[in-house]
Amino acid sequence: MPQTTKNITAMANAIRALAMDAVQQANSGHPGAPMGMADMAVALWGRHLRHHPAQPLWADRDRFVLSNGHASMLIYALLHLSGYELSIDDLKAFRQMHSKTPGHPEVGVTPGVETTTGPLGQGITNAVGMALAEKLLATEFNRPGHAIVNHHTYAFLGDGCLMEGISHEAVALAGAWKLNKLIALYDDNGISIDGQVTPWFIDNTAQRFEACGWNVIGPVDGHDVDAVDGAITKAKLSADKPTLIVCKTHIGKGSPNRANTAKAHGEPLGGDEIKLTRETIGWEHDAFVIPDEVYADWNAKADGDILVADWNTRFEAYKALFPSEAAEFLRRMAGELPANFPEIAVEAVAAAHDKAETVASRKASQIALEFFTAAIPEMLGGSADLTGSNLTNTKSTPAFRVDETGAVVTTDGKPGRHINYGVREFGMAAIMNGVTLHGGYIPYAGTFLTFSDYSRNAIRMAALMKQRVIHVFTHDSIGLGEDGPTHQSVEHAASLRLIPGLDVWRPADTTETAVAWTIALANKHRPSALLLSRQNLPYAPKQDADVITQGAYVLAEPAEVGLKKKAVAVIIATGSEVQLALHAQAELAKRGVPVRVVSMPSTSVFDRQDVAYKKAVLPPKLPRVAVEAGVTDFWWKYGVDAVVGIDTYGESAPAGVLFKHFGLTPENVTATVLKVLAKKK
Amino acid sequence: MPQTTKNITAMANAIRALAMDAVQQANSGHPGAPMGMADMAVALWGRHLRHHPAQPLWADRDRFVLSNGHASMLIYALLHLSGYELSIDDLKAFRQMHSKTPGHPEVGVTPGVETTTGPLGQGITNAVGMALAEKLLATEFNRPGHAIVNHHTYAFLGDGCLMEGISHEAVALAGAWKLNKLIALYDDNGISIDGQVTPWFIDNTAQRFEACGWNVIGPVDGHDVDAVDGAITKAKLSADKPTLIVCKTHIGKGSPNRANTAKAHGEPLGGDEIKLTRETIGWEHDAFVIPDEVYADWNAKADGDILVADWNTRFEAYKALFPSEAAEFLRRMAGELPANFPEIAVEAVAAAHDKAETVASRKASQIALEFFTAAIPEMLGGSADLTGSNLTNTKSTPAFRVDETGAVVTTDGKPGRHINYGVREFGMAAIMNGVTLHGGYIPYAGTFLTFSDYSRNAIRMAALMKQRVIHVFTHDSIGLGEDGPTHQSVEHAASLRLIPGLDVWRPADTTETAVAWTIALANKHRPSALLLSRQNLPYAPKQDADVITQGAYVLAEPAEVGLKKKAVAVIIATGSEVQLALHAQAELAKRGVPVRVVSMPSTSVFDRQDVAYKKAVLPPKLPRVAVEAGVTDFWWKYGVDAVVGIDTYGESAPAGVLFKHFGLTPENVTATVLKVLAKKK
Repeated sequence: MPQTTKNITAMANAIRALAMDAVQQANSGHPGAPMGMADMAVALWGRHLRHHPAQPLWADRDRFVLSNGHASMLIYALLHLSGYELSIDDLKAFRQMHSKTPGHPEVGVTPGVETTTGPLGQGITNAVGMALAEKLLATEFNRPGHAIVNHHTYAFLGDGCLMEGISHEAVALAGAWKLNKLIALYDDNGISIDGQVTPWFIDNTAQRFEACGWNVIGPVDGHDVDAVDGAITKAKLSADKPTLIVCKTHIGKGSPNRANTAKAHGEPLGGDEIKLTRETIGWEHDAFVIPDEVYADWNAKADGDILVADWNTRFEAYKALFPSEAAEFLRRMAGELPANFPEIAVEAVAAAHDKAETVASRKASQIALEFFTAAIPEMLGGSADLTGSNLTNTKSTPAFRVDETGAVVTTDGKPGRHINYGVREFGMAAIMNGVTLHGGYIPYAGTFLTFSDYSRNAIRMAALMKQRVIHVFTHDSIGLGEDGPTHQSVEHAASLRLIPGLDVWRPADTTETAVAWTIALANKHRPSALLLSRQNLPYAPKQDADVITQGAYVLAEPAEVGLKKKAVAVIIATGSEVQLALHAQAELAKRGVPVRVVSMPSTSVFDRQDVAYKKAVLPPKLPRVAVEAGVTDFWWKYGVDAVVGIDTYGESAPAGVLFKHFGLTPENVTATVLKVLAKKK
Repeated sequence: MPQTTKNITAMANAIRALAMDAVQQANSGHPGAPMGMADMAVALWGRHLRHHPAQPLWADRDRFVLSNGHASMLIYALLHLSGYELSIDDLKAFRQMHSKTPGHPEVGVTPGVETTTGPLGQGITNAVGMALAEKLLATEFNRPGHAIVNHHTYAFLGDGCLMEGISHEAVALAGAWKLNKLIALYDDNGISIDGQVTPWFIDNTAQRFEACGWNVIGPVDGHDVDAVDGAITKAKLSADKPTLIVCKTHIGKGSPNRANTAKAHGEPLGGDEIKLTRETIGWEHDAFVIPDEVYADWNAKADGDILVADWNTRFEAYKALFPSEAAEFLRRMAGELPANFPEIAVEAVAAAHDKAETVASRKASQIALEFFTAAIPEMLGGSADLTGSNLTNTKSTPAFRVDETGAVVTTDGKPGRHINYGVREFGMAAIMNGVTLHGGYIPYAGTFLTFSDYSRNAIRMAALMKQRVIHVFTHDSIGLGEDGPTHQSVEHAASLRLIPGLDVWRPADTTETAVAWTIALANKHRPSALLLSRQNLPYAPKQDADVITQGAYVLAEPAEVGLKKKAVAVIIATGSEVQLALHAQAELAKRGVPVRVVSMPSTSVFDRQDVAYKKAVLPPKLPRVAVEAGVTDFWWKYGVDAVVGIDTYGESAPAGVLFKHFGLTPENVTATVLKVLAKKK
């Protein structure tokens, strides 16, 4: 790209002007960071980033992540200036209802935004996931002389991201995985919201990254475009390490009174200071006015046309030689499941249903995964150092490894598909978000359900971003046994169900588990969490497995236990407690009390069914008792009359002892149903 | 202490034997880590730790934290052997119901256990909190020649703790605060559950700690007691840095077939291997049999007597010279509030009630904090880099700072009491747990409510441990406005309420906020979370502030809006939505419909009231509508007929626009009440 003719000062000042004007117009926002990173952005976006504003979803584009998402006006300015579908009117609507320029960047809302950022530390972790996906896809699909996957992942990040613990998890894994095409630019301005960072942030960041196997360049003057440009050029040469470029900057650069102060961070500069800043930086244009020559210098469409045309040509050549790989690549990047997915799903569910095995639901999950991972090559498994406990690995998913040169180790030309994330639950979840955002893979991984607390905000982010990420949370509730209350997830099922847009499954047996996997995989725009038992669960006999797809269903009518009467009450149960419900049903039958057992593996899926189905499963006039080994508050939404559950922490003891201790017994469920019926009379 | 006469090999092997025997007896647990750390434990507990088994709560004892809590048999063995109230029968009951030896160490259950560990990374972070408390207390109470506070905090930690992101937050702050009396011993065995760690853990840990301002010693041979002993001696000389001692060890040391394998981690060795191990290490005693001479070598009571007697003498001398400081120290360490706390509380609540100001509840919190922090010197505030937003600072709480030598900066002899935690929410929460476990301070600190997700497991741990930690979560829900859905906490109020043992407050105005603070401070054995608004909230006029202490109360009967009829429905509201309820009540009154408004700032506190009070507030026969700007699922437990809330993510726009968009308006509440009443007819 012809660099010499561009007015880089004006390019950077255009960002500064748009940032301060948009924040001023919104009367809220963060001008300091975009103003401080403007020159870094000129270096990266003006000289390196391979993208096409007219084709924001081009498969081989470089990925750019703004990890310090509060600097959203930086990316909005860049997208606007370089020619994306983001007009000056969109910028004027910064932070307004339903605009394309929300307070923090949101994927799916603004073309060119690759991930939703704002919760600090997660953007750089998403970027690690994107770079991992690129490395794996390149290994899987590229052929000698045909590098159809070959792009960089860039991230801007600030002090805040580096203070967050998740950044350590991301940095450590990027180093271990030798993600050499990941280049992070650190906006090192020495200021965070509470002021000059030295009393609370003394990290030698360069040394810290080196300790995790990174290549570190700098510090460079982050306001010297050529210096940053040179550092990026050098970073791209790294063959076996990710690179951090430390860019020394001034927050609010250009503002005479706000630069280098925390005040530049999170509030409008004000009319007077904006005027002063315009004078100081020599920007004579009115608010939201960008001269044509600056637009021309920024516009990336012509370059984008060339890049995409070149890639298209190369992809055609690839396709000619490797037609099935090319088709597969396009399918994978589109996020479409293999054409035979429905048959695979039927097979997995039918196998479970036919065998009717008594196994732990974590084992049921592995059995289902054997089917799915064999048939769906994009499934990318993993565990936060609990592989043998979560059972997320299968015969089809050897471990992902890189060799000393940084190359991915392959077996029959295929990279490993089980990621050992180490003890890094939050990092794992946010990396999975990055993997799915990149495209080409469906990530899933495991930890103990209790530690969903650690990854909770990344689960939320997947739901907010509508991304298919599948969390396998095993060792559910007190069935975990002796590890005790720190590891027993009494409130987690209920609290995960509160996350909007997340499907939570707590299956009762092998068939429900296989169905849960089927729906989770088919849900292209929704994350799922599968809550699975450590302990064996007896098979819950059922006529029909299809009905499980509705989230809740009638598992057993009184007829199943030999009563010809219609049910007078409903027991709703999930997971390991479905067997208690069935035992209670039998016990009640002995006393002549006919009850229906409803298994409800997924409340959110059930909630999406039509009213008629819901009423058919839970007849409005029948009293209801819910049974779940967890906090009871959640269940009242289903109009229950009583809940058998646990509203305290667990204890350390064998599982059988605990179920008795906490009253999760058929006897107690029976007694509760009888009490409810007595009251209703 | 006389070292040369002790049989250190036998001392270490006693730990190994107890660990493998207890795990075998329980048929579950983790033998590998205690066997691997046995020699490190001999060095620390046998030669350095200043404690007294007969007085486990002696104020100036060294603190010991087993951050890798799965190695619980290490600490149980140590407590038993050194003479704590933990019998061999207690060890035989390892992991059994109601034993003193649960699967992971639990504070309050086992004498000598300082904190509950198991969720990795939090133990070392608790240790940072303990060391912080020690440093602050020493600054506050010691006088020249009278160092009544002068102890170390030791932590053992493993690879898992170091992989967790929170360890980065803890390490960074310990370095920034120059906690020179914090000494961490790293059990560097190169094995985690998934196997040899090299593919997923390549950190140069020493370099990483040095990058954060730590003194690093080693690697030393972790099985060479003298080497570890020497390293600890050296570490204690550090004047201005915390110390990490890297101890190279073998997991499962002593077991011929399991040592150095992941299999040693989490399952019993089995009878045969235990036999082989006994032979290999030369331990000829039966299971759970420890020879008297080994007990004698381990017993720390005689030394403890001397240490405590010496301290008592020194404390008496201190008391003679500084009687009020001595009394204050004892009060503070006992966790008792100042005698005039009730008056202060009345004053703070009355002031709020009298002024009846319209301010944001975060500001109301700061107003209350001005009273409380002025009167309660042990209140130790802070923020995760959002001080000016959370408003957790007051005139009485200057910032905590250390100078270049590591000394705490004082003003009039007092250290600062506002901690700038940086952008480290999880670390902040777990450090606060450590501070309160140490004693002497009541920690509270703020971040945005959304980021309670980041710290969630540490909040849970405070509740499980029954510790008084107060979380100030501001920028509640959509009232946050333009920062958008990443920052808007729609599900957080409900999901925090599900954590057993946590009091959640969502106050509606200044008086409710002052009462929330009062109860949070008075709750010695319970953490609290205060959910506070960014935006102004009008004062909700009330007769009586006392009734707020019951968690929910009748705020306004129909008479308040000029209707003489009895209420036909109840609107339950919290926080910012109480004003909506009051407006709806007025609107309904215009239509002749009398309704009661119940303000319910704390559901858990209300849940603890007696049935009569609950029925008085929520008469069983009246229909109920709940209003809260969050997910609706939670509210059904109160037998409501409808909930006005938000079951999706928020949006980026000004707060007023959002409340309208999401139907959180008096009109919608009014319509909902009318609809419910129409249905009931």
